[in-house]
This record gives sequence, C-alpha cells and structure tokens, in this order.
Amino acid sequence: MEFRELVMGRYATKLFDGCKIPEEKVAELLELVRWAPSGLNIQPWKIKIVVHDATKEMLSAATWDEPQIKSCSHLLVFCADTDFDGLRHRLARSMKENGVPEQVWHIVMGIAERMAKMSAAQWLSYAQCQVYLALSYAILAAKELGFDSCPMANFKPDEYSRILRLPENLVPTILCPVGYAADQQHGKWRYPLEEIVVA
Amino acid sequence: MEFRELVMGRYATKLFDGCKIPEEKVAELLELVRWAPSGLNIQPWKIKIVVHDATKEMLSAATWDEPQIKSCSHLLVFCADTDFDGLRHRLARSMKENGVPEQVWHIVMGIAERMAKMSAAQWLSYAQCQVYLALSYAILAAKELGFDSCPMANFKPDEYSRILRLPENLVPTILCPVGYAADQQHGKWRYPLEEIVVA
Repeated sequence: MEFRELVMGRYATKLFDGCKIPEEKVAELLELVRWAPSGLNIQPWKIKIVVHDATKEMLSAATWDEPQIKSCSHLLVFCADTDFDGLRHRLARSMKENGVPEQVWHIVMGIAERMAKMSAAQWLSYAQCQVYLALSYAILAAKELGFDSCPMANFKPDEYSRILRLPENLVPTILCPVGYAADQQHGKWRYPLEEIVVA
Repeated sequence: MEFRELVMGRYATKLFDGCKIPEEKVAELLELVRWAPSGLNIQPWKIKIVVHDATKEMLSAATWDEPQIKSCSHLLVFCADTDFDGLRHRLARSMKENGVPEQVWHIVMGIAERMAKMSAAQWLSYAQCQVYLALSYAILAAKELGFDSCPMANFKPDEYSRILRLPENLVPTILCPVGYAADQQHGKWRYPLEEIVVA
C-alpha cells in the first residue's frame, strides 16, 4: 500500500472480531516494528504479547473494560526500559559487534554519558517517547499487513505489571491491540495546517 | 514505495547537500504529518519551520554545531503544547464541529477531565510522546516523498525557544531537519526479536 493509504486508512479500532491473525503475519509485524528508530539507536523498549483469553480477561479489568482487550487477536503491551545503565552497556557492545566506526562509537557514547546524568523521571520520559516511535511503526505496519490496531494509553500500568509479572525495569507505556476490525471507521478529522505550523 | 522499503530505506542523515526541497513537496510532507494520531486526537503539537540561513546559524550553536542544521533544506522543530486547558477546550469544540457522535464526545471529554489532574510534568511527558508520533510520520513521509531526514533530540530547548521566539506554551521537543542526503547510509542494525519480546 502507498504510505498515504496507510496514513488515511488506519484508525483507532474500537472493536475487533475475535479472529486470530496468523502467527506469520504477527511475526512480519514485529519484524517491521523491530526496525523502528530511537535516539542513539538505544531501543529502550520491550513488547509483551498477550494471546490467552484468561490473561486478557484480567487485563480488561485494568483497562476500564474497553472492548478492544478481549476482542483483539494479539495484545501488544509496549514497555519502556528504565535500566539506562544496562541499555548503555548493551549499546556500547552492540555497536562494536555491528561494525559501527570507532569515531561514531565515541560520539554516541559521549552523548550517552551526558544522558546518564538524567533523573530517573527524565529517562523514563525520554524512553517512553522512543516507545511511541515503535508504536507508530506497529499501527502503520498492521494496516500494511491487512489488519487493524488501536493505541490505548488509558490503562493501569501497575496492574499490567502485576498481572503480566513484568520485570521491575519495564514500565508498560502504551497498549496496541491488533486484530480484524468489527467496527466502522468514523470520519477522520485533524486540525488544519494553519493550527499546526507556528507562523 | 512499500512500507517495508520506507522502513529500511530511511536513516538518520548526518549531512545534507544544501539543496532546497520544492515548497509543494514540503506541503505534502506536512499534510501527511497532519494526519498523525494522538491520544484522544488532541494533537498537542506545533511545528516551527526554519528556512533562513541566519536563523539556522544561530540554532546550529544550540545544537552542538551538528552539520544537519546548516546543511538541511527545512528544519522542522516539533514542539509539545503545554496548554492542556486550551487543548481540551479546542478538542471539545472541534469534535462537535466534526460531527463526532454525542456518546463518543462524552467518553473522550470524560477521559480528558481525568487527565486534567495530571501534573504539568506528567502532561508534558504525555504530550511529548504524542509529538514523537508526528515525528515518525515525518521521517517516513520524507522518504516516501524522495528526501531524507534526521531526528535530533540533542539540542538546547531553551535556546531554541529564545531564538525562535516561541510562545511560552510550546516546548521544543525534537528536531527533524529534512533535505537531500550528502552522506551514505551506514549499515542499519537493530537487536534481534528475542531481545525485544518479553517471554
């Protein structure tokens, strides 16, 4: 599909039909999400994928019983990784393994060193922004692959952590249920360009 | 271009060739960015577009003299809007103008009311996440339209606000210079799926 068709065709699906997306399609989706960009290429994200009905049932209660959780095929829980030190060391190692030139390595690690002075709250905020980049790839990739999605920020992160037994360093940031839509797309609207561009 | 080609073809361009992107292409880019999604469709972003060399010169100093600022065609400064009350009232009005069903209007405004309890820092963090969604549309749209881009978070926001005389409610969040690449794409790498998916 053309990029414009993806942009105009995707929408926040309010109800899915309960059918399962074939696993190979989900793998294609994840493969596209994997290539999302992030600051310093630090990739401070993890995705928990929920398919079992019993788990979805528990999560539904932590999501204001929004119907997407139980009706979707796969629920992607995008988490921000708060372990900046771990991420930084992984980055240092991986850039070498991936043949990143010495000069670039030093520039990136210099910035990472400055970023190490961030407070925990600042890092979380930064990491969550990166998670949204991965999310945007997921919603566009879903449309490209022939299914639907719905970003959902309105849920109880602590409950998600508990139910999914997530490691302490992961903060559930945004949900992205995917599946086949059982609703209709409402009229899409956005503000005109004059309201977006600063004169 | 197919979505996969956009994903694999785009990269953080380190140097542009200084040529100008035709204004109609820039308009096409902004039109695609305009359709980016956001929580509640609240669209808490503004974009300042910088084209003049003298301004770029000043901004360059506030961006560690990274060569993208002076060599790009257009510098897009993505800002988060901190005026949550203003955004909320605009949303209430605009949903009605755009024929959003009464029931949906009440659900959305109910969530917005709960969100009004966020601290200023929490709202800024939330708004900045949404700005990254708009950013992701910009980098993919740039590739689709035949030019290049480079997200840059490593700059001095206060200096940007001052130089660009931005209104107080706008927080420069991420830069996206666009133009025609004068560098080569390094080998693209990401972590394997096993490191991204939580078992």
